[in-house]
Amino acid sequence: MTRVRMSLFVSLDGYTATTGVTSEHPMGEDWERLTAAYAATRTFRERVFGDTSGAGTTGVDEAHATAFFDEIGSEIMGASMFGLHVFPDDPDWKGWWGDEPPFNAPVYVLTSTAPRPPIPMQGGTTFHFRAGAIEDVLAEATEAAGGLDVRVGGGVRTAQAFLRAGLVDDLHVMIAPILLGRGTRLWDGLSGLELTHKVTAEAAESGTIHMTFTR
Amino acid sequence: MTRVRMSLFVSLDGYTATTGVTSEHPMGEDWERLTAAYAATRTFRERVFGDTSGAGTTGVDEAHATAFFDEIGSEIMGASMFGLHVFPDDPDWKGWWGDEPPFNAPVYVLTSTAPRPPIPMQGGTTFHFRAGAIEDVLAEATEAAGGLDVRVGGGVRTAQAFLRAGLVDDLHVMIAPILLGRGTRLWDGLSGLELTHKVTAEAAESGTIHMTFTR
Repeated sequence: MTRVRMSLFVSLDGYTATTGVTSEHPMGEDWERLTAAYAATRTFRERVFGDTSGAGTTGVDEAHATAFFDEIGSEIMGASMFGLHVFPDDPDWKGWWGDEPPFNAPVYVLTSTAPRPPIPMQGGTTFHFRAGAIEDVLAEATEAAGGLDVRVGGGVRTAQAFLRAGLVDDLHVMIAPILLGRGTRLWDGLSGLELTHKVTAEAAESGTIHMTFTR
Repeated sequence: MTRVRMSLFVSLDGYTATTGVTSEHPMGEDWERLTAAYAATRTFRERVFGDTSGAGTTGVDEAHATAFFDEIGSEIMGASMFGLHVFPDDPDWKGWWGDEPPFNAPVYVLTSTAPRPPIPMQGGTTFHFRAGAIEDVLAEATEAAGGLDVRVGGGVRTAQAFLRAGLVDDLHVMIAPILLGRGTRLWDGLSGLELTHKVTAEAAESGTIHMTFTR
């Protein structure tokens, strides 16, 4: 049975790193601080940076990083995560992840502008562009997942839209022990999520808190 | 060496329970949900409710509850925590805690109105009322603590004033795994606290996350 899964990063004061988005800081100026513990894991280094040396942290952060990549059959992401807002006029833009993106599955990019033709990449990733309702895109992604899970990525506006619509079965939030004081407030409009989902909390060696909301 | 300590409750989305303060809900309508795990501990039941049966949870929440009462020589709290905002016209108001409050030490109540005479209670608590600067009240409380620690209680405005002024050595925050969506935002104006204080995170069996900021 396909489940809809989501992993997000947030600071202790509830902010996502949306301040100062530029081509140099595509995910925002605070992104590296917010995701430092995750980027240090062995799995992330291997899957995203292509580091096969076995370097990287193990432990609680690594266990969650491994689970992040398990059993994913397709992905949905917002235009901002793909980079359409930073490079709106470049029809050849293929995302931030090089020739072989770490998705290895169909990726549905939500866009309110005229959809582009699909972009096949190495390693099984194909970027598709969709302008329809999120429920329709989710139905297509679920079909494409072939019984595996659908992962919904960022940005935070996309994540909030899926969460507020009650479409997410498994939410994993990595809370960095830092107070950013700026960005977009992740939790807005989500009060009562603990009533529909079972919540767990786990502290990692890095100080990162891993919360899961599961139904 | 006297340390200035503070323990606070906050929801996962960063709110303190300040919505709906009435005589029936003196700490706000959400206070009981926010503090449920703490109120269930053996130490809290004994120290605050007078339950000497030994009932109550043990584990991580209990360990922090015990530490909360250790080595406290004096206390500072805001007018709202004492109840002056709910009962501004009752000169005989003596707080929420009955004849023997669980402070067992001098308590300095901050007030911007005309100070009242001190109120001696059973068990070593005496309520003093002070209208001066928080630095001056802290100096007096430190003197009164006689080498033990000074605890700064709520409400959240008082807590924020001490934190923003850089007066707190040990901050303990209990994060309940619930999304309230209303209240006062604890973390506002505190960005960068992780740069002046060392941070630790620990998850309790209840799902409560205990964060400590220590310098």
